[in-house]
Amino acid sequence: MATNPLEPEEFRRQGHMIIDFIADYYNNIEKYPVLSRAEPGYLRTRLPKSAPNNPEPIETILKDVNSHIIPGLTHWQSPNHFALFPSSGSTAGFLGETLAAGLNVVGFNWVSSPAATELETIVMDWLGQMLKLPKSFLFSGTGGGVLQGTTCEAIICTLVAARDRKLSAIGRENIGKLVVYGSDQTHSGFQKASRIAGIHPDNYRVVETNKTTSFAMSSEALRRSIEADVEAGLAPLFVCATVGTTSTTAVDPLGPIAEVAKEYGMWVHVDAAYAGSACICPEFRHFIDGVERMNSFSFNAHKWFFTTLDCCCLWVKDPGALTKSLSTDPEILKNKATESKKVIDYKDWQITLNRRFRALKLWLVLRSYGVERLQGFLRSHVRMAKLFEALLEEDDRFEVVVPRSFAVVCFRVSPLAISKFKLIIITSSNDHKIENDVVRKGECCVINGDAALREKCINEVNRELLELVNGSGRVYMSHGVVGGVFVLRFAVGATLTEESHVVRAWKVVKEHADTILANYN
Amino acid sequence: MATNPLEPEEFRRQGHMIIDFIADYYNNIEKYPVLSRAEPGYLRTRLPKSAPNNPEPIETILKDVNSHIIPGLTHWQSPNHFALFPSSGSTAGFLGETLAAGLNVVGFNWVSSPAATELETIVMDWLGQMLKLPKSFLFSGTGGGVLQGTTCEAIICTLVAARDRKLSAIGRENIGKLVVYGSDQTHSGFQKASRIAGIHPDNYRVVETNKTTSFAMSSEALRRSIEADVEAGLAPLFVCATVGTTSTTAVDPLGPIAEVAKEYGMWVHVDAAYAGSACICPEFRHFIDGVERMNSFSFNAHKWFFTTLDCCCLWVKDPGALTKSLSTDPEILKNKATESKKVIDYKDWQITLNRRFRALKLWLVLRSYGVERLQGFLRSHVRMAKLFEALLEEDDRFEVVVPRSFAVVCFRVSPLAISKFKLIIITSSNDHKIENDVVRKGECCVINGDAALREKCINEVNRELLELVNGSGRVYMSHGVVGGVFVLRFAVGATLTEESHVVRAWKVVKEHADTILANYN
Repeated sequence: MATNPLEPEEFRRQGHMIIDFIADYYNNIEKYPVLSRAEPGYLRTRLPKSAPNNPEPIETILKDVNSHIIPGLTHWQSPNHFALFPSSGSTAGFLGETLAAGLNVVGFNWVSSPAATELETIVMDWLGQMLKLPKSFLFSGTGGGVLQGTTCEAIICTLVAARDRKLSAIGRENIGKLVVYGSDQTHSGFQKASRIAGIHPDNYRVVETNKTTSFAMSSEALRRSIEADVEAGLAPLFVCATVGTTSTTAVDPLGPIAEVAKEYGMWVHVDAAYAGSACICPEFRHFIDGVERMNSFSFNAHKWFFTTLDCCCLWVKDPGALTKSLSTDPEILKNKATESKKVIDYKDWQITLNRRFRALKLWLVLRSYGVERLQGFLRSHVRMAKLFEALLEEDDRFEVVVPRSFAVVCFRVSPLAISKFKLIIITSSNDHKIENDVVRKGECCVINGDAALREKCINEVNRELLELVNGSGRVYMSHGVVGGVFVLRFAVGATLTEESHVVRAWKVVKEHADTILANYN
Repeated sequence: MATNPLEPEEFRRQGHMIIDFIADYYNNIEKYPVLSRAEPGYLRTRLPKSAPNNPEPIETILKDVNSHIIPGLTHWQSPNHFALFPSSGSTAGFLGETLAAGLNVVGFNWVSSPAATELETIVMDWLGQMLKLPKSFLFSGTGGGVLQGTTCEAIICTLVAARDRKLSAIGRENIGKLVVYGSDQTHSGFQKASRIAGIHPDNYRVVETNKTTSFAMSSEALRRSIEADVEAGLAPLFVCATVGTTSTTAVDPLGPIAEVAKEYGMWVHVDAAYAGSACICPEFRHFIDGVERMNSFSFNAHKWFFTTLDCCCLWVKDPGALTKSLSTDPEILKNKATESKKVIDYKDWQITLNRRFRALKLWLVLRSYGVERLQGFLRSHVRMAKLFEALLEEDDRFEVVVPRSFAVVCFRVSPLAISKFKLIIITSSNDHKIENDVVRKGECCVINGDAALREKCINEVNRELLELVNGSGRVYMSHGVVGGVFVLRFAVGATLTEESHVVRAWKVVKEHADTILANYN
């Protein structure tokens, strides 16, 4: 007879082992190249072709984690991870996740574990207060908050609520007329959410942005787009406004967007996935001015709020709109608490039935650090981003491409750093056609004369710089392309990052820029 | 200056504390009433109105977990939890979840952590082999598998893929003509998924089941429903077949359903959320005979496969159909590995962009226990369900309402146990109208003469029994209503459950039945 797989003392023994394993991993994390160097298919050659018939000891498995899994990781918790957006873990966030896994409750409705639902309503109100959201978004007011997995889910839920509300007014047969609006900087998840929700693919509008507004959505351009659709007999439905866009952390003007959308009876969702957390600091709160006129607001606590993946905080003004679209009432879940209407059944606020006890990790983060220290952590990241910016600005071969608002710096090697413009095709396997010549990978052609080609050249220089920087293994950054300009993104937010890491990252950038620029001068 | 919130040695200290906390919880779990006795709103009166300004020590927080959270839990890991479907945790599943939380990688695409993607493809093939899925569902064949959070997500993804494939053939303007099919036993998540995906609410077809087929879907009834829709000019799209329905673990006949669906070019998904795992045992494998003709198949490893919530395993024959509908290609995520087309970017196989490293927990479960022992665990649960069934059968006041296939027993107090049929209105606050008399809560009326009312009476007896049993705090069971019959569901699957718990549960049922039946005899 096998031992019970949840026998408490064996659980305790192995549990302590995994904690030590992870603590040791954090201690050693800077020894690994940040961006994994694994080759496609590397793992299949190292692991057996089928599951083992007999048990293997945890000691063997952890050894395999070290030799086969760790080398295939990109180390998101590394203090040298400056790519994309951070995944800022913390001890408190980890403990909350771990406790939730240990309790392993399935909190679809109130009765399935009252604490899971009630703690969620409480922390969502706490967090809403910290963000100074209006009462209309809080349970202590007339709205309410819910923890979703990710922003994509939050957008699908609100979009479906908005869709059904509109269709019940204009008739379900008009689903093909519904139009949704984002900007060219809006997260790709919005377009995907629209597709999933059955919005006609032709009815996804992209409002173009440009450098003059730092790539924020223009409410005037939005209005023009909406007016054209109304004229064409279509039905404007939903705007997704962003606070902290993915490429450059641009902030769409919430007030003016709400103004336009209100005229047309549209739902406006604010996707503050990255930058929302910063708004718990008074000096950043102005970025969400106008939120009081929105229908829904979300940010990801798993991005820049010390909470383990996944944890998206969504507040809505009208929970009834959500539950009207998302409620189910199967016999097997019928219970007196639900019938009393005194409780919340969160399954009706989200896509899925099952839900993990995510509120625990948020509660532990809020209590373990407290509001002031959380503000302090966020400010220290902003300060480090400013430091990186200052280092860049001391070196006139570099430029900051868009103004920094939070802890992401978008920069590049400036065209001024180059005297001999050449197009050296490095990263693309395609041939480039330049002035009637075909240039192949590795070849180069001098193109000093042509402004557009100069721009292409500087983009290639920066692309090469990013590749060398990441190839060094010492840091990991990512890129964006805005207004045709290739920018390197330096995002501070990994929890272990300190000033010394930022200074070292700058040295890595400079060293590789020195090498590359030697070819162009 | 605050200490870093991910400082490794403080992480280690607190990590060990949380492990001990959870191990102690498991040791004490039988001391708590299984179903929480918390009253709606209990927690709001106990916690502060806002987040603390200053840090609180973990010791204080864990004390609060004990005094405020534990009493509000329904204890899913209790060996006396026999309600709904199990949430079978295990040490290995927990370790995998914990390790994933510690590494905290955001595995949306291959390059974001190659190990996360590659391990997932490997374990999905391992698991597919264990289920003897045909090669057409495996990466080593022509299909592939992906880990989703829950079945709801798996169904949305496959439904959207099927929808877009169909609409690209018949024109997007025909979205209102698409029809989807389930039975009256199909999980409520399917109807919700259809609504989310924009299927017209009138086009959700419910094939009625009945006792003669043990509440399995009749392929003939399905065919009639489809034919009527085709005749009405509608477009049949998708069938959701179930292996192990929620109420009674009925098994829809996969082969005959595929036969019908194929004629009409429909997508068939198999939802084996609960019973799929049992099919790794040869003696249960026949329940998914016919799967080779299906388009997609899913089961929840977090239900009855020792893996922590959430973890739904989905296999599809045509990954291209999924990725055609769900792909995004934002500039910020562009990378050479993706461009090489040698890798899988799982973001294009699911709703969300972000994804946790779920493969770790499945890998740890498969390796820590091995195939044979996993089969043994499942068989032991089935054996315990059989034991409960045998105990029931020895007492002729009880009856098993539908044949047991897995580890869920659907039973009730039999009408034969009653000599004086009375309708005592207990659970409903509504008045009942019976033979021209209005019967109020707590009142009773003898109704020996009327067969339908006798049925109502026996349902009320069983409802009362369930309430008393759950109110005892000693066990937790749930209910279903099939063919108008209220049944108690006894689901074995909590990992800590042993024979002694089953015997004790039977005693609790018997004791309370004795009390209730005294009123009716």
